[in-house]
Amino acid sequence: MTQELRLGIAGLGTVGASVIRMIARRGEALSRTGMTIRVTAVSARDRSRDRGLDLSGVTWFDDPVALARSGEVDCVVELIGGAEGAAKRTVEAALAAGKPVVTANKALLAHHGLALARAAEASGVSLACEASVAGGIPVIKVLREALAGNAISRVYGILNGTCNYILSRMELEGLTFEACLKDAQALGYAEADPTFDVEGFDTAHKLAILTSLAFGTAPDADGVSVEGISAITPLDLRMADELGYRIKLLGVAEATSAGIEQRVHPTMVPKSSAIAQVMGVTNAVTIDSDALRELTLIGPGAGGEATASAVVADIADLAAGRTAPAFGRPATALAPPARAEMQRHEGGYYIRLSVHDRPGVAAGVATRMAEREISLESILQRRSEVAATQDRRGRSGMPVPLVLITYAATEAAIRASLDAMASDGFLAEPPQVIRIERE
Amino acid sequence: MTQELRLGIAGLGTVGASVIRMIARRGEALSRTGMTIRVTAVSARDRSRDRGLDLSGVTWFDDPVALARSGEVDCVVELIGGAEGAAKRTVEAALAAGKPVVTANKALLAHHGLALARAAEASGVSLACEASVAGGIPVIKVLREALAGNAISRVYGILNGTCNYILSRMELEGLTFEACLKDAQALGYAEADPTFDVEGFDTAHKLAILTSLAFGTAPDADGVSVEGISAITPLDLRMADELGYRIKLLGVAEATSAGIEQRVHPTMVPKSSAIAQVMGVTNAVTIDSDALRELTLIGPGAGGEATASAVVADIADLAAGRTAPAFGRPATALAPPARAEMQRHEGGYYIRLSVHDRPGVAAGVATRMAEREISLESILQRRSEVAATQDRRGRSGMPVPLVLITYAATEAAIRASLDAMASDGFLAEPPQVIRIERE
Repeated sequence: MTQELRLGIAGLGTVGASVIRMIARRGEALSRTGMTIRVTAVSARDRSRDRGLDLSGVTWFDDPVALARSGEVDCVVELIGGAEGAAKRTVEAALAAGKPVVTANKALLAHHGLALARAAEASGVSLACEASVAGGIPVIKVLREALAGNAISRVYGILNGTCNYILSRMELEGLTFEACLKDAQALGYAEADPTFDVEGFDTAHKLAILTSLAFGTAPDADGVSVEGISAITPLDLRMADELGYRIKLLGVAEATSAGIEQRVHPTMVPKSSAIAQVMGVTNAVTIDSDALRELTLIGPGAGGEATASAVVADIADLAAGRTAPAFGRPATALAPPARAEMQRHEGGYYIRLSVHDRPGVAAGVATRMAEREISLESILQRRSEVAATQDRRGRSGMPVPLVLITYAATEAAIRASLDAMASDGFLAEPPQVIRIERE
Repeated sequence: MTQELRLGIAGLGTVGASVIRMIARRGEALSRTGMTIRVTAVSARDRSRDRGLDLSGVTWFDDPVALARSGEVDCVVELIGGAEGAAKRTVEAALAAGKPVVTANKALLAHHGLALARAAEASGVSLACEASVAGGIPVIKVLREALAGNAISRVYGILNGTCNYILSRMELEGLTFEACLKDAQALGYAEADPTFDVEGFDTAHKLAILTSLAFGTAPDADGVSVEGISAITPLDLRMADELGYRIKLLGVAEATSAGIEQRVHPTMVPKSSAIAQVMGVTNAVTIDSDALRELTLIGPGAGGEATASAVVADIADLAAGRTAPAFGRPATALAPPARAEMQRHEGGYYIRLSVHDRPGVAAGVATRMAEREISLESILQRRSEVAATQDRRGRSGMPVPLVLITYAATEAAIRASLDAMASDGFLAEPPQVIRIERE
């Protein structure tokens, strides 16, 4: 006799509805796990809403915590979202009741991952979260299971489709951030309040989970240095193109001698890299490790069906008895990461200055960098935009852009040299600084 | 008390040596599976060879079958290679003795996969083969576990690093196949007898395994239509470039209305596709499915360390109790695929003709295609190479290249039209035909 795995789905948004349809559609394939998978209970805020789902024979719960505790439910699928409130209470209740949990909730895991992993372990059940990072890309399974033989040195990726869509359009069509954001909102790729996506917080949550899996540390969302894409201009994208780069919002987790760096920021990546090819709402993750060197996964990072794919894979693993600790190792082994301060980050930098167009400024800028032992790989000056107002010496009196690409330097040195240039009165506007990530 | 998983390694080439070193290096991490993993026995042809390995305390077997049957071995790691002979006897002996097997042997699985999966199932042990396809890329785990919610429509990839290295260099440096092959041999990327790689047979074996996992059919190596890269010329690569394509040796498995297509051939892929960016010895696999649409994995496809990474991941899964049937479903459910004949393959084609330079030939060629309802997307003629000998009508009397790109047409129609052109006496040389794979 086949055993049954009875699911309680908490949260019936786009993802929840896709999960229910996928389980119905893939019933025969899923039964090969050795269990019949069936949705027996659901919970959502608004019962009256028509979701186009056949919920006959499925018990409705107004309270997701009651669903989690119900005797009709063997496994709770949490798709409510948010780091606190109903989602957290539901997951806690399920784990306390000895029920495995499948969740897509990045905020919850980034902020409370360690406590929840401990609770799961205490009850001897699994807490699966493939859908919490990069939608349908199975990066959690790959980090947790497929790289057992590898020591990982860096994980980085495009983890937010909204930002990648905006940057792609800005680049391809020469549009401003504001114009592309408006389009993204019209197409449903961005929320009415886009802050969470465009300022990098969504990426930071996902990165905190990847860091934990890659380096065996407890998720540490507060340790992520975060910078969004709202200050990127079409000029930066043009300059990047000329210099052989593209600009992507990356989440980067890296083991350095100073500790674990976790940073989210607009990043110049070489045009020839796999990650630079990723355009639109697609996500991508690259994992650097000792044996494999570079492994890149590219796929849909959001959307009901793609996210449901990850949720259903977790459910199938559970039904087949393939389990693993939430973050790849026992919760007791998850120590907080030694945080590497951003000031100590070392890398190449793209610096776009707006300098006053007068004698001695370029020399002064170069001197200020040399004083901090920052070496320049290239300098780019474009006067074309102010040419119309130039005098016969080629000077316009208007601020002109000056772009510098540095070899590896520390964030602290870069900041100090820019402060010095500002004190010198060289800068007409605050500088634009974009980090370069090399392969 | 921690249980021990005692490994017997049959085959001590580059991969075997890397596996032994990796297990030593990653001992602590691997013990998190709940078991201590230890190599207790090895077997290879030449005991006297210095492999730079510490084999103290490890039992040596001259006969790998004896190793498989040894009471000191819980799990057999088969790294001998080859579809028949010692490798097959070793795996059979291990499974018959009720021991799980981890193997990197694509030829063995492509030809005897079904029988071996049955033997594993009869003994209730697992037969794991991540390393058999695309080296360190965990494509087998992804197909088998991560896509449980998806119906797969197509899998295609660059599965042979030797061929991709040769094509990349031909493209980037304008060299001939022969020159690049020689370099690949000097660098150790190609064997002294390169036939198996460059004529597509290695790719075909790997594809047969992917087909089985993607479509739930028994591996059917004999059902793969195979064509290698030795006939590709620098001119084809230049033409591809002009037309917005790159040429890659792809293995493609596709569900069509006529059955399952399995084909290995040089393929024009759009330059903008993720797979087109993959240069050198790197491998890549793209999986098209209903929920995820497109998922691409890119990584090292060969080499001791990368292949060992896949072997060790299989061992870790085994130690952690995470098992799955070899081809993703019970062996009884694996039916032979309904083979789609290559003649019925429908797609776009690049056709490079060498035509006699006389009036009416272009019109005749176009007519022969129109008769079979083949529509042309573009026609490209370059006379530059024969310009020196042209008369004032622009004719040289020399054969001139004529390149045609077709919209979707069947292989049968293309072949029939080319036969007709040959009968007409239009062709100075046999035509070059390269299939186009669109995203």
